[in-house]
Amino acid sequence: MSEKTAVTPPTHTTPPARFSHGVRKGGLLQVAGQVGFLPAAPGEPPAVAGPTLREQTLQTLANVEAVLREGGATWDDVVMTRVYLTHTDHFAELNALYDEYLAGVAVPPARTTVYVGLPTGLLVEIDALAVLG
Amino acid sequence: MSEKTAVTPPTHTTPPARFSHGVRKGGLLQVAGQVGFLPAAPGEPPAVAGPTLREQTLQTLANVEAVLREGGATWDDVVMTRVYLTHTDHFAELNALYDEYLAGVAVPPARTTVYVGLPTGLLVEIDALAVLG
Amino acid sequence: MSEKTAVTPPTHTTPPARFSHGVRKGGLLQVAGQVGFLPAAPGEPPAVAGPTLREQTLQTLANVEAVLREGGATWDDVVMTRVYLTHTDHFAELNALYDEYLAGVAVPPARTTVYVGLPTGLLVEIDALAVLG
Repeated sequence: MSEKTAVTPPTHTTPPARFSHGVRKGGLLQVAGQVGFLPAAPGEPPAVAGPTLREQTLQTLANVEAVLREGGATWDDVVMTRVYLTHTDHFAELNALYDEYLAGVAVPPARTTVYVGLPTGLLVEIDALAVLG
Repeated sequence: MSEKTAVTPPTHTTPPARFSHGVRKGGLLQVAGQVGFLPAAPGEPPAVAGPTLREQTLQTLANVEAVLREGGATWDDVVMTRVYLTHTDHFAELNALYDEYLAGVAVPPARTTVYVGLPTGLLVEIDALAVLG
Repeated sequence: MSEKTAVTPPTHTTPPARFSHGVRKGGLLQVAGQVGFLPAAPGEPPAVAGPTLREQTLQTLANVEAVLREGGATWDDVVMTRVYLTHTDHFAELNALYDEYLAGVAVPPARTTVYVGLPTGLLVEIDALAVLG
């Protein structure tokens, strides 16, 4: 029986619903959809890193990474990321930021990128699946 | 060689294409995107539980659960759900229903929620990945 | 320690960002979102198989299959596909093409289909998760 564990970086904001920022079970670490929220400030609602794609993408990737680290993983364990953007014309800038952020990852994860609706003010959401060990 | 098995709750409607409602292989149980269809009535086309987000969300979660159960899993085995809504202003109500439905799950799954198009009349779709054993 | 390997069919176009067309790790093979790009022509930018849903769907499925094959898998190992369409009225035609393409697969994968935005000119994107061995 493999144990199931919630993975919650101490600086992460409380999820708006009954879900975990990360879950480990049986060799998998699933990272929930992360957005560009800054580290939680006690008593304050979640605040986005900024209005630009650049600010939000870098914060979102940092938030994914925080869950990976808290779960005992690194980008090298990630097999898949899902990138959700709101505008097709953000693709090139997202890619430039993404590529720079993952520059040191020997085998980049697979990725799917689609264009969806997100809550007002959010421009990007990213989740990730890692295989541990 | 791990066996691959289709998981098909007896009350589920026939999928509109060549896919399985659930698939087990090698310790994973993947639940296909479920919508708010009522249990199948022989000779009738699929019928949605109702026009409201509440009716459809509860039926959708029940349909996910039916696949989990048929596949030998419970919500406690689920590491990830993906929630697809059609309107951002459905988020709060979806969360309230979701939280109540999953109230008894000790470690809630990770989750990604995005806003997409769905077939006419459908307001929510949910899939799930479970790790067994 | 399970090794992580990039899976890159020789005929595939170079991804537009730092991601792999496929990744193997620990018994999983994740296929990145594939679109209807023809096999790469040296020195040329990626070219889509054609403007129609039929052309793009068949090429997309062939591209998914190429990654599976390169990674040592077949459709029989696939537990999940995600189908992204741009128009709800493409559902029936997509299903007909999909069903024919997967006619020989004993246990069809689970599937989620949603309607999103894709880069201009693209009508369909598909990714897949396979469990090996």
